[in-house]
Amino acid sequence: MTEDIYNLVKKLFPICRSITGDGVRETLQTIKEIIPLDIKEVPSGTKVFDWTVPDEWNVRDAYVKDESGKRIIDFKKCNLHLIGYSVPFEGRMSLAELKEHLYTLPEQPELIPYVTSYYKKHWGFCLKHNQYKALKEGTYEVKIDSSLKQGRLTYGELVIEGQSEKEIFLSTYICHPSMANNELSGLAVTAYLAKYLLSKKQTLNYTYRIIFVPETIGALTYLSLHKDHLKKNVIAGYVVTCTGLEGPFSYVHTRAENTLVDRVTIHVLRHSKKETRLYDFLSRGSDERQYNSPGIDLPVGSLMRTIYGGYPEYHTSGDNLELVTAQALKESLETYKLCLEVIEKNHTYVATVFGEPMLSKYRFYHTVSTLETGRNAKEADLRNILAYCDGNHDLLWIADKINRPVWGLFGLVDSLAEKGLISKVNHG
Amino acid sequence: MTEDIYNLVKKLFPICRSITGDGVRETLQTIKEIIPLDIKEVPSGTKVFDWTVPDEWNVRDAYVKDESGKRIIDFKKCNLHLIGYSVPFEGRMSLAELKEHLYTLPEQPELIPYVTSYYKKHWGFCLKHNQYKALKEGTYEVKIDSSLKQGRLTYGELVIEGQSEKEIFLSTYICHPSMANNELSGLAVTAYLAKYLLSKKQTLNYTYRIIFVPETIGALTYLSLHKDHLKKNVIAGYVVTCTGLEGPFSYVHTRAENTLVDRVTIHVLRHSKKETRLYDFLSRGSDERQYNSPGIDLPVGSLMRTIYGGYPEYHTSGDNLELVTAQALKESLETYKLCLEVIEKNHTYVATVFGEPMLSKYRFYHTVSTLETGRNAKEADLRNILAYCDGNHDLLWIADKINRPVWGLFGLVDSLAEKGLISKVNHG
Amino acid sequence: MTEDIYNLVKKLFPICRSITGDGVRETLQTIKEIIPLDIKEVPSGTKVFDWTVPDEWNVRDAYVKDESGKRIIDFKKCNLHLIGYSVPFEGRMSLAELKEHLYTLPEQPELIPYVTSYYKKHWGFCLKHNQYKALKEGTYEVKIDSSLKQGRLTYGELVIEGQSEKEIFLSTYICHPSMANNELSGLAVTAYLAKYLLSKKQTLNYTYRIIFVPETIGALTYLSLHKDHLKKNVIAGYVVTCTGLEGPFSYVHTRAENTLVDRVTIHVLRHSKKETRLYDFLSRGSDERQYNSPGIDLPVGSLMRTIYGGYPEYHTSGDNLELVTAQALKESLETYKLCLEVIEKNHTYVATVFGEPMLSKYRFYHTVSTLETGRNAKEADLRNILAYCDGNHDLLWIADKINRPVWGLFGLVDSLAEKGLISKVNHG
Repeated sequence: MTEDIYNLVKKLFPICRSITGDGVRETLQTIKEIIPLDIKEVPSGTKVFDWTVPDEWNVRDAYVKDESGKRIIDFKKCNLHLIGYSVPFEGRMSLAELKEHLYTLPEQPELIPYVTSYYKKHWGFCLKHNQYKALKEGTYEVKIDSSLKQGRLTYGELVIEGQSEKEIFLSTYICHPSMANNELSGLAVTAYLAKYLLSKKQTLNYTYRIIFVPETIGALTYLSLHKDHLKKNVIAGYVVTCTGLEGPFSYVHTRAENTLVDRVTIHVLRHSKKETRLYDFLSRGSDERQYNSPGIDLPVGSLMRTIYGGYPEYHTSGDNLELVTAQALKESLETYKLCLEVIEKNHTYVATVFGEPMLSKYRFYHTVSTLETGRNAKEADLRNILAYCDGNHDLLWIADKINRPVWGLFGLVDSLAEKGLISKVNHG
Repeated sequence: MTEDIYNLVKKLFPICRSITGDGVRETLQTIKEIIPLDIKEVPSGTKVFDWTVPDEWNVRDAYVKDESGKRIIDFKKCNLHLIGYSVPFEGRMSLAELKEHLYTLPEQPELIPYVTSYYKKHWGFCLKHNQYKALKEGTYEVKIDSSLKQGRLTYGELVIEGQSEKEIFLSTYICHPSMANNELSGLAVTAYLAKYLLSKKQTLNYTYRIIFVPETIGALTYLSLHKDHLKKNVIAGYVVTCTGLEGPFSYVHTRAENTLVDRVTIHVLRHSKKETRLYDFLSRGSDERQYNSPGIDLPVGSLMRTIYGGYPEYHTSGDNLELVTAQALKESLETYKLCLEVIEKNHTYVATVFGEPMLSKYRFYHTVSTLETGRNAKEADLRNILAYCDGNHDLLWIADKINRPVWGLFGLVDSLAEKGLISKVNHG
Repeated sequence: MTEDIYNLVKKLFPICRSITGDGVRETLQTIKEIIPLDIKEVPSGTKVFDWTVPDEWNVRDAYVKDESGKRIIDFKKCNLHLIGYSVPFEGRMSLAELKEHLYTLPEQPELIPYVTSYYKKHWGFCLKHNQYKALKEGTYEVKIDSSLKQGRLTYGELVIEGQSEKEIFLSTYICHPSMANNELSGLAVTAYLAKYLLSKKQTLNYTYRIIFVPETIGALTYLSLHKDHLKKNVIAGYVVTCTGLEGPFSYVHTRAENTLVDRVTIHVLRHSKKETRLYDFLSRGSDERQYNSPGIDLPVGSLMRTIYGGYPEYHTSGDNLELVTAQALKESLETYKLCLEVIEKNHTYVATVFGEPMLSKYRFYHTVSTLETGRNAKEADLRNILAYCDGNHDLLWIADKINRPVWGLFGLVDSLAEKGLISKVNHG
């Protein structure tokens, strides 16, 4: 499966995505080959909270030609060349006039920047600063064969029903053109995480709601349609993004801090001994901004590798297929799986007998007591689990208390529950 | 205005104040030239909680003469020479008898100490230890031409009404004879702070209650008359004292700790980059003792420069006009003004739209999104204010969260409120 | 009295105790010579929560003889030689067969281990590893003249009634054979602590419930009989054990943490400047396991010297009369007495007058105020006690706040209460 995730990134890389348009549709269709996605559309002009769904944008071609007629900037070679949501344009102009529409990165002169102008009518091209500097005086021919008209905003949704109505919410975004880590890594990890959850559907405790949306306007659109349901049911969530680099695992906390998803993720990272960077909510950068906003208040964090903005190729043409590795994608997927497993099994139990049970009766325990049996670590874990299963502390709390990875306790807990020595508390 | 405060200190310096008497009246009349003060009196014998207002004390003259008839200790030269509340006395005595009534500071032999005996009938003189050591055997003539009889305790009060019934309480004391830092600096800063508040009366949110009282018995008297009103309305307060030295800003917390006035003052001192010393309530030394006492429970702190007792001239003749500087008085006044401004504007807001508003619509924000716009600090502040305006956190909390001086946020907050994106929460 | 405690340990040392049997009865009778103990019995077969009271075990004789007929392992020489609850047995066997029933400590080859098999029918002998290694091939004669039959579990109880129904609970165990520190030190200190409490019966505020029980099964038996009463009344408790070594004072917290007994014990140890080791509840090892278990939830800690398992002779024949000292026993007793005194006197008071009282009126205070009187530490303590007697903070909290041993405040507090300046709050 390791190569599968990388191959999905590779397949999606050339598509020109934006917050609307055929690139989004093609992207979602590609994901639908892996998981059963509901693809939904919302018309341009729909009010979503303080925003309005914009016109749909599509591009057939866009270029700048020099006097010799040579395409010196060519959308077909790299879709980052064209500013996102550039209006249609055709004309001839001097270098000075052209330059008012050119965007570069003087400090990274060999990279093409990623620039958008979704809500203000504008056009422009992005290019390497070195190329920009070499441009000669002359007359340039500009053509942007784009369309910007009443259409639809497109997103994908998959709900996997577990035993509980309570939901785990996963959100990833699908609006960036050819950039591999931000955004395709997140999208691909989410797809394969969804596939994994589908394979375990029979045993899932929680319901999983997984969405693929254009950033900001897509998240807001989804919230405007499902706000009340989400507020009622979502107990934890992640924005899945930037999962393709081999850098440290990075976690952006929920606004409320110390929520379940914060506690789980930090526990998982600590006990799986990953190099880790923890960020508070001030470092947020993606749709957790919307999900955690006042009045919405969903406890949604974001688990990444190197954080967005933390690697020099971020939002440039350097964020390409060579930057992302199959190994990183796989580790990110596995870590997300472990986090979800912990959420699934993190119940609160209460002891059913007064005092310590007679553990030797249940074959949990030694029968002849020596100095050595007193030092048995597994028996100590058993005693500690029983001591703290008081109906007020979840397993995660207990695991933190006794400094064990919570997944190391699941077996013992299941045995204790099976023997009837503890029972699950329904915090309903 | 800088010189004005110092000049007030200078003008008040020669007056012989005590907890009652004409010195208090003259002091309050002098302040009344600056602000419209209500001067009130309470008769001797009035019960105030566990105390009784004492007889009124006045002094015409007091001295010790040596055998040659020379005034060797003379109240008219320095009012600290006479113990506060010394009873009338006239007599001749040996050096040994006299010494039972003399007070000095052996470790600061060139300073006259400040001593009182308000509630036990007593008389005595204070002098430099060096003079004391040089006294020769012989017969001394002592005269204390004081009166101690049924009279009144005098205090001043100014209430400046703001829009809210909730009150900010400022208290300073007026019972020390010629000492410049403790107490005249506090009195003068309070007078000019009151003058400043009067000049802003039209825009004040809170009502300001400002009192000039004799320490302890005056504060208790005021509390006994206004306890219920104060308990109902006061949300923050300061005892203003020791504001005349150029030492570090010193803050004594309220008993309850972490109250509004504690949070505001610490925030102001931290962000205005003053050298600061924070003291807990155990270091209290003035009328905050009464205001914070159990059953009274007013959240009153005290903001000083070098704390009382923290400078060697404290409660001696060394606490004079040369110790106090116009610059220190001005800085103290400015800092108090900033604290009050923060209290005035420290509201709690709640966002009025779900999700982030579309900030570019309101001209708060960039329209073309590049790497650079993503790093704009002012836009980050805006997003953060909106994220934490959830109706539960006041601006001070938000400012502390994002590590900005709260006064740097007032402009943004006003703009957001004006656009209707946030609204004030009435914690009523 | 110092020698008395040690002599009690010495007297009890030779008795062969176990969780049932005549050794327990003899032990309790010996204690009854010191304090009026109720000795109670519960029949074998009684269900106690998840456990069952086992058959009663008694031993007349037990040995292993070599081919020459010499007793090479002899219960009569040291009762640790026989595994606790060894079933009756008689037979001859080869060295190899015998070895399946021998227990040693290879790393402490000169010590006999302490081993039990209460609930699984088994027999065996414990011996020094050096002796074990020297055993020769041959036929050995084994005899265990023990009885294991329907009988009774025996424990002792003493309730000393104070003015309040609220109880302090003291528990010590009586089921180990000849080991001096673990367990006789605890038993002896408890007996003399009870004797001390009886001597102060007239002045006791709380009721004291003191039990001498076999570990685990005895504690559970007691809980099964008195659970509801204990849960209603016990406000603090200790398991008294391992009080005979001169090592550091060691305290195992209650499960709930920061309960009264935790606060008191830590305060006492800190201010009496004892070398101290604090352990959280994870280090528990005796009946605090049962008392703190979910559903029982008694706030019971354990104050020891060197913790069980923290000294190399623990649970071996090295834990003998030479290890324990009279001095250590006395210090432990004194420390327990101080802890109980603090619990007794740790009330919550509320000031009865508004503002500070006029302390000089009550002769608590100076009358002539000088710089020196302002620095008087006892007067500062008085002011601080009054400031924090707000009905919400107990004396222990106040003592911690002002960093004084709470017993240094009792005199001042009693005086203030006598003068009517503070009154006790009934947290009923």
